[in-house]
Amino acid sequence: MTLTTDQFIAGARRAAGHATFQAEDAASGERLAPAFVEATPEEIDAACQAAAAAADRFADAPLATRAGLLEAIAEGLEARADAFVERAGAETGLPEPRIRGELARTTGQLRMFARVVREGGFLGVRIDHGDPDRQPAPKPDLRQRNIPLGPVAVFGASNFPLAFSVCGGDTASALAAGCPVVVKAHPAHPGTSALAAEAVEAAVADSDLPAGVFSMLQGAGHDLGAALVRHPAIEAVGFTGSQRGGLALQRIAAERDRPIPVHAEMGSVNPLFVLPGALADRPEAIARGLAGSVALGCGQFCTKPGLVFVRRGEGFETFREQLIQAVEAMAPAIMLHSGILAAFEAGCERLAAAEGVERLAAGDSAEHRARATAFITAAEILNAQPDLADEVFGPAVLVVTLDDATGFETVAEGLVGQLTAGIHARDSELDDQAALITRLEQRAGRVLFNGFPTGVEVGEAMVHGGPYPSTTDSRTTSVGTRAIERFLRPVALQDMPPAALPPTLRDDNPLGLPRRVDGVDQPGAAH
Amino acid sequence: MTLTTDQFIAGARRAAGHATFQAEDAASGERLAPAFVEATPEEIDAACQAAAAAADRFADAPLATRAGLLEAIAEGLEARADAFVERAGAETGLPEPRIRGELARTTGQLRMFARVVREGGFLGVRIDHGDPDRQPAPKPDLRQRNIPLGPVAVFGASNFPLAFSVCGGDTASALAAGCPVVVKAHPAHPGTSALAAEAVEAAVADSDLPAGVFSMLQGAGHDLGAALVRHPAIEAVGFTGSQRGGLALQRIAAERDRPIPVHAEMGSVNPLFVLPGALADRPEAIARGLAGSVALGCGQFCTKPGLVFVRRGEGFETFREQLIQAVEAMAPAIMLHSGILAAFEAGCERLAAAEGVERLAAGDSAEHRARATAFITAAEILNAQPDLADEVFGPAVLVVTLDDATGFETVAEGLVGQLTAGIHARDSELDDQAALITRLEQRAGRVLFNGFPTGVEVGEAMVHGGPYPSTTDSRTTSVGTRAIERFLRPVALQDMPPAALPPTLRDDNPLGLPRRVDGVDQPGAAH
Repeated sequence: MTLTTDQFIAGARRAAGHATFQAEDAASGERLAPAFVEATPEEIDAACQAAAAAADRFADAPLATRAGLLEAIAEGLEARADAFVERAGAETGLPEPRIRGELARTTGQLRMFARVVREGGFLGVRIDHGDPDRQPAPKPDLRQRNIPLGPVAVFGASNFPLAFSVCGGDTASALAAGCPVVVKAHPAHPGTSALAAEAVEAAVADSDLPAGVFSMLQGAGHDLGAALVRHPAIEAVGFTGSQRGGLALQRIAAERDRPIPVHAEMGSVNPLFVLPGALADRPEAIARGLAGSVALGCGQFCTKPGLVFVRRGEGFETFREQLIQAVEAMAPAIMLHSGILAAFEAGCERLAAAEGVERLAAGDSAEHRARATAFITAAEILNAQPDLADEVFGPAVLVVTLDDATGFETVAEGLVGQLTAGIHARDSELDDQAALITRLEQRAGRVLFNGFPTGVEVGEAMVHGGPYPSTTDSRTTSVGTRAIERFLRPVALQDMPPAALPPTLRDDNPLGLPRRVDGVDQPGAAH
Repeated sequence: MTLTTDQFIAGARRAAGHATFQAEDAASGERLAPAFVEATPEEIDAACQAAAAAADRFADAPLATRAGLLEAIAEGLEARADAFVERAGAETGLPEPRIRGELARTTGQLRMFARVVREGGFLGVRIDHGDPDRQPAPKPDLRQRNIPLGPVAVFGASNFPLAFSVCGGDTASALAAGCPVVVKAHPAHPGTSALAAEAVEAAVADSDLPAGVFSMLQGAGHDLGAALVRHPAIEAVGFTGSQRGGLALQRIAAERDRPIPVHAEMGSVNPLFVLPGALADRPEAIARGLAGSVALGCGQFCTKPGLVFVRRGEGFETFREQLIQAVEAMAPAIMLHSGILAAFEAGCERLAAAEGVERLAAGDSAEHRARATAFITAAEILNAQPDLADEVFGPAVLVVTLDDATGFETVAEGLVGQLTAGIHARDSELDDQAALITRLEQRAGRVLFNGFPTGVEVGEAMVHGGPYPSTTDSRTTSVGTRAIERFLRPVALQDMPPAALPPTLRDDNPLGLPRRVDGVDQPGAAH
C-alpha cells in the first residue's frame, strides 16, 4: 500500500520539511516504512489559515451538506477497511477484530452526528417574540441559536487509531458543529492517520465545501501541537491522552492573547466498588468480568478499571482466587508502542515496590510484551499514599480491601475526578448506599452498576467526561451526541428584520427544527 | 434602618474580624455609617464548609422546594423595597425609579428561575434504553441528567446593587441549579448587600433546606475574593466586573490543585454600525437614541455603546449636530463611587489626549460628577491605536468615521470580543451586509438591529455573554434561562437497577419532566 507521507493541507499535499519520523511496528518495536515528513511552521500556519478562510462558508452551508460530508467520510473509511487492518494493525498492535470493530464505531459515530445535524436540535433555537406595547418598556424580539466556534485543533489519540483520531469523535463532532478541523496526527500511527485523512480529503473534495474544512499535519514532537494551540486562527482544542499532555495544552491555550477552550480527556482509574452482597453472590463472575475488563485492549482504555474496593467478607476468597487464576492465565500482549510499554512496566514496578502493596498475580511474560498484573493493598495504605491510585495505563489493577469500620463512601470521598465509577451490589443493598452513589456521581461522569466500564456506548445519553483531573471541563462529554456542544456557542439576534433572518430562526421554520418559542418546546419535523 | 454589619454564615451572624470598612455616599463621596466588619479567614472557611455540607441535601431536595426558595427570596426583597431605595440610593447614587426597576428585574429573574426549576428542562434528562440482545454486544441502559456542580462563589457587581449582586442573576441561577452560594458582597454597597442577605437568609430559614445553602461575606480588599476562589469547597465562580478582576480570579482558579470554572463577565464597548441608508433616513433619531443609551444609568452598564462607526455621507452632519446637542444638554451625573468616577475621568482624558481624536461635545460639569462626553476620530486612527477602543466605563462614546474605501466588515474584523454589537440599517441594506452580520456574530454574544444595547431583556433567548475578553467563556450567558447551565454538569447512570433510580430518571417520569427518550424529544407535563 502506498501511504501519503506529506501534510494534508486544505486538499493539497505539502512536504517542505526536512525532518522525518517513522512509526514502529508495535509487535517488534522495529521501524516501519515509510518515513513521514514533519510539518513546518509555515505548513502549520497554512493549515490554520485555510481553516479560518473556510469557516464562514462551512458555517453557512446547508445542514444537509454538512451531514452529507460526515456520511461520505464514513463511506470513505469503510472503503479502506482492509488497509486499516493492515496498517493500524502494524502501527498499534491491535488485532483485526478490534480494528474492524473500532472502524464500525467510528463510522457509526460519523453517521450519528450526521443525524444530529439533520435533526438540528443542536442549534438550540429559541425565539422570544417581541411586544412593542409592553410596559414600562417594549419587549424586543430575541432569537438565539448556537453557532460554530471556528477552527478546531484535534489531537489524535494513541489508543484509538480510528475512533479518537483523525476522524474520530472530536473531528466528527467539530465538523457536525460546523467547525473546520486541523488534526495533529498521533505520531505512533502516522500511516493509519494518512489513510483516514485521504478519506476525509476526498469527502470534502466531493462536497460543495471549501477544502480548508480539513487539514492534517504530521509531527513527532511537541512543537506541532503547541504551535497549533497557539495559532490565532484556532478557536478550540479537542484532545484525548495523558494528563501531562492535556494540561500542557491547556496552559498554552490559557496563555494566548485570546484564551480558547481546551477539551482534554486525560484518563482515569475508574474505581469499582464491590459491595458485600454482590461479593457473596457472584465472586467468580465479578473476578472474571474484572479481569476481562482490565485486559481488554491490553488495558489501554481510558475506562479500564484500575482500582477495586472490596471487603474481606463472604466471597472474598473466591473472588481473590478467581482473579489470580484469570490474571495468571493471561497471555503476554502487544502494547500500542514501546513508550507505552515502558511506562506500563514502570507503573507496575512502582506499585510492586510500594510499602504495603503486594503483587497478587501476574500473567505470563515475554520480551516486548505487557505482563498483566494484579496488586492488592488495604484502604489505610492507599489513604496514606494516594498516588497508589494514579493511573497505570495497561493491564494492571489494584485491589483495595476495606476493614469493616470504613464505609465505601468514605473511600469514594477521597478519590479525585474520574471518567467512570462502578458499583457491584445486590439490588437490596443499594437502598442503604445513597451516600456512596451521591459521592460517585460527584466524582465521575458515568456511574455504572453491576458491570465494567470498558465499552463506551456511543449514543444520546452517554457521558464520557468527568471532573478534573479526568478532563479539563466536567460540563461536557467527548462521546455521544452532546459532544457537539463543545464546539458551539449561543448568539442572540435582537429585532432583526424578518427578511434578514437566517432560515434557522425564521418564524415559518423552513428547516423543521425543534425549537423553543415563547417558552414552549416545539418538536422538529424529524418527529 | 438598622443594618447587619456582620457576616451571614449559614444562618448565623459572625464578626470575629477587627478590620472594618464603610461605604461612601455616592453623591458626596463621604463615608456612610455603619462600619462593616471584614470576614476573617476562619469565617470564609466556615461559609465554604457550610456550603459544602449543605450541598447534598440541597441537590436532593424536591424541585418544588428549590423553586419555593427562589420565590420566597423574591418576596423578601419586595418587602424591603423602601429600604433598598434609601440605602442603595445612598451607596450607589442610583435614583429611586432605577432602584425600583432593578428590584423588579431581580425578583422577576428569581421567579423566572423558579419556573425553570419547576419545568425541569434544565435537567436535560436523556434516556437510552438498553437492549440485552443487541449484537455483537448488549446495549446498556443509559440515563443522563445534569447535576449541580456544588458550592458557587458569587461576586457582587458594583453597577447593579440588586440584579447582579447578592441575589442577582448569578445567585438565582446557581440556586436554581441546586448549588449552595457564598456571596462576596461588593464593598461599594455593603448595606444594600446586608439587606438582600437578610431576605435570602430568612427564605432559607423558612424552607426545608440547610442553612449552609447561603452565606454572604463582607470585605473591602482583594483577599476575601481570592480566598473564596481558592477554597477547595468552591466548585465554580460567577463574577461581573472589570477585566482585571475577572482575569485575576480566573488565574487563581486555574492555579488550584483542582481548577474550577470561572464565569466572568468583564464588559465591552458594544460597537454600533450605522449604515449609510439608516444615517440618511434617521440621523436625528439615531443620535438621540445613542446619546440616551450612552447616558443611561450614567453610562455604567456593561452594554453601554462606547464605539459608533459611521460614514461621512448623507445625514452625517445632522447626526453629528444632534449628538452634540444631546450630549451638551446632559446634566452632570452621580457615579457609583469615587473610584469609578476617577477611572472615568482618566479614560476621558486618555481619549482627549490621543492623537487624532477630537472631543466632539461635553455636557455640563460639576464637582464629584461625571461629565458626559463624545469623542470623534477616524477609522485609520483607531486602526493604528486599537486601545482607543478600550472600554471607558461611564457616559462617554467615541464616534469613528469610515472613509468610502473601508468596509464596515473590515472594521468589525478588527474588534475584540464583545457582549453586543449593533447595526442600524435600512432593511434593504442588510441584503448586502451578510459579511458584516457574520463578523459581528463571531465577535459578540448578541447582535441587535436598529436599537441600542442597554436594557438587557431577561428571558429564554437572551445571550449576555460573548467571546473573550467580554467574558471568560463564550459558550454561556449570565442573563436569561440558559444562565443555569453554567452551574450544571451531566452525569450518566448505566444499568442502574430501576428501583434505585432517582425520580428524575424513572421510566414513569413522576416529575413530568421534558426529556429525550431513545432519541425522541418528549414534552414535559408543564406543556
